[in-house]
Amino acid sequence: MIYFCPQCGKPVSQRVPTGDNRLRHVCDACGYIHYENPRLVLGAIAEWQERLLLCRRAIEPRAGFWTLPAGFMENGESTQAAAARETLEEACARVEHSRLFALIDVPQINQVHIFYRGALAGGEHAPGEESLETALFAEDEIPWSQLAFLTVRLALEHYFTDRRAGTFGQHQLILGETTCNSRPSARTGCVRAT
Amino acid sequence: MIYFCPQCGKPVSQRVPTGDNRLRHVCDACGYIHYENPRLVLGAIAEWQERLLLCRRAIEPRAGFWTLPAGFMENGESTQAAAARETLEEACARVEHSRLFALIDVPQINQVHIFYRGALAGGEHAPGEESLETALFAEDEIPWSQLAFLTVRLALEHYFTDRRAGTFGQHQLILGETTCNSRPSARTGCVRAT
Repeated sequence: MIYFCPQCGKPVSQRVPTGDNRLRHVCDACGYIHYENPRLVLGAIAEWQERLLLCRRAIEPRAGFWTLPAGFMENGESTQAAAARETLEEACARVEHSRLFALIDVPQINQVHIFYRGALAGGEHAPGEESLETALFAEDEIPWSQLAFLTVRLALEHYFTDRRAGTFGQHQLILGETTCNSRPSARTGCVRAT
Repeated sequence: MIYFCPQCGKPVSQRVPTGDNRLRHVCDACGYIHYENPRLVLGAIAEWQERLLLCRRAIEPRAGFWTLPAGFMENGESTQAAAARETLEEACARVEHSRLFALIDVPQINQVHIFYRGALAGGEHAPGEESLETALFAEDEIPWSQLAFLTVRLALEHYFTDRRAGTFGQHQLILGETTCNSRPSARTGCVRAT
């Protein structure tokens, strides 16, 4: 939601621009049209000797809860680089040889969450500014009841399902629907996310 | 790039906000911080009896050139729904049973292009407002020299490679780099995109 034109500073109004079919904030003074689009959140599943790296959040939302390192993608970087940067910032850790693992739509909050899976370099980690602590967890140690976000839970569930099956797929899910186009679909099946 | 605060209308300045590590446009009057993030472009590979649906663009950029139906994802929709909506808007066509096919980073222009692959319902199509014409192409009919965008070319190349191999993977590419995390990697290999 914007109230003033970021180009000329005049108040904006809401209308459907010519050739468009959606309400936008438009500046009648200079003609600027404001588009708001979904944002990408990139995260990493960093593996070290059967364990995964999690961070306990120092900041809101969900301060005190555990998460995979993740955050908003910045301009000028790739999705893979964004996942690696977030891992470095939040867990002082390097994730290498990463591959796309899961894409999870979260249309309720205009976000798309993407998780890469890779190797935690040297097994080294330490809390960054946004983390209270970082730790490596085996499957039976994952603090499922203390996870910060549902997309993190979904990514971890799919990860362990794949690992038990002995092969990692790539997964596409929509939060709040039962759709799951995970590959291979016959194995992973649908996840009801809400 | 913004010049005025969209919340209060005062001029903004550029600085690194507290707790951040990047230059942002910031409003010293009201404290608003402006974040600019990559945008998602969603497209569809719609199949009908060994043929694919392409649109010839009526608008810039690349007016007159051929493309897969694609466009900016809107708030409130999933990636899959965005690909379907663009197909409906640009080609008056319905794509069904679609699955994630390719994610292509385009960091030079702060975009991530995602293509879904699905069935063109009834084989029906017609040019929407943004298209001069729509048509179905067999592999040897694709107008390779008249394609609008490099990501469309990459998606089509991977599509036909997969189809010849008899199985469709999911592909992750970075435009301008040689990285290709396509699945299965042994078959698809790397694509040098620039």
